Amino acid sequence: MTNPTAAMLVIGDEILSGRTRDSNMHHLARELTAHGIRLVEARMVADDHAGIVAALNELRGRVDHLFTSGGIGPTHDDITADAVAAAFDVPIGIRDDARALLEAHYQRTGLDLNAARLRMARVPDGASLIDNPVSAAPGFTLGNVHVMAGVPAIFQAMLASVLPGLTSGAALLSQSVDVHRGEGEIAGPLGDLAARYPALSFGSYPWIRDGAHGTQIVVRGTDGGQLDAAMVELMTLLDQRG
Amino acid sequence: MTNPTAAMLVIGDEILSGRTRDSNMHHLARELTAHGIRLVEARMVADDHAGIVAALNELRGRVDHLFTSGGIGPTHDDITADAVAAAFDVPIGIRDDARALLEAHYQRTGLDLNAARLRMARVPDGASLIDNPVSAAPGFTLGNVHVMAGVPAIFQAMLASVLPGLTSGAALLSQSVDVHRGEGEIAGPLGDLAARYPALSFGSYPWIRDGAHGTQIVVRGTDGGQLDAAMVELMTLLDQRG
Repeated sequence: MTNPTAAMLVIGDEILSGRTRDSNMHHLARELTAHGIRLVEARMVADDHAGIVAALNELRGRVDHLFTSGGIGPTHDDITADAVAAAFDVPIGIRDDARALLEAHYQRTGLDLNAARLRMARVPDGASLIDNPVSAAPGFTLGNVHVMAGVPAIFQAMLASVLPGLTSGAALLSQSVDVHRGEGEIAGPLGDLAARYPALSFGSYPWIRDGAHGTQIVVRGTDGGQLDAAMVELMTLLDQRG
Repeated sequence: MTNPTAAMLVIGDEILSGRTRDSNMHHLARELTAHGIRLVEARMVADDHAGIVAALNELRGRVDHLFTSGGIGPTHDDITADAVAAAFDVPIGIRDDARALLEAHYQRTGLDLNAARLRMARVPDGASLIDNPVSAAPGFTLGNVHVMAGVPAIFQAMLASVLPGLTSGAALLSQSVDVHRGEGEIAGPLGDLAARYPALSFGSYPWIRDGAHGTQIVVRGTDGGQLDAAMVELMTLLDQRG
């Protein structure tokens, strides 16, 4: 497939300890698929500088776009911006445009722009800001890395402002059918069909509902004609075994 | 910390396309934390042989235990067992004990143990089987890698049978407090406190409930005495700023 590729890096001890259940990865996966960008890997790592830098450098070299979530707040464990600066080997400091956004926000809300909050204006050199309509503190894009907040409402808003600017691939289409048969019943003929359509991806997912069991078969690809042809063959094949 | 470490590898196109929302990682994270094992990374990768082998080899070399979920069913895209055999460079084939489990199950359910289903008896040489009380097809442990199903009910059952056999570390304790103040308000003093307790981990998580906003502060560690002392200091510090 020639669709652009992406990876995700979820940063935060709270995900790995089980305190928080990440929902940003699933949201990103759905949005990217709709935009024709193929998510090829997601990683969740701890609040550890060296570990974040290593993951950033490995992943950004392998994909067209790397999205991060988490670690850009005001506290001591928010170290993502510094890790990104280190990964790109560029300086980082408080930037005037980011500081102006925070000043306006805290003036509006009557809160103090103290030293901790000012940390959220630290942006690596050469980055462009990503708007945060919820709580002002911006994300940023540096090279092919999009650095976004971990709070789901903010992550989603940031993604909505970044995504339209990215080159989209041919839409990743999918069609699916539910059958009341076990996965193992249809695995053989399904594998044969998949071998004859190498440009499509065939998945089968067992389900149990109200005591009945069956399988959902999902076919994915970018060529609508091939997808239609494969589905016709699939339905014929299922009828024959019905 | 001297607790044993673990990583997770979630395998499957359906996770990365956004069709399915993974829930096994969150379950594993909570169970490991309760068992005193520290989850240090989770990765989600596609149904791609080379990619799975590379991730298996990198992660198993870095942690005490690697858990995988997904890709051990009967269909053509279930390639985890072969990838594990390749990662360890050992042969793989249908094993008599695994076949016997499947034969008994399909005899009971009146279904045919066809070639596709028999694939689920393929186990790398040297592995020990993990019981599957739901649908018989076993998982397996090879070296420090525990290979388990993607279906959450089966994943959970397999984990429940594996976990008691693993060396557990000192329990990872945590205490938390909710304050009706923004993260940025308490970030400075919280950072100072964290610096004085290097063996503990301090996290702060903003929340919004019914229009009010605040922060949950979570302190984690294995030394209950230190944890108590830090919480006393934290409460004092919060009172002074109240």
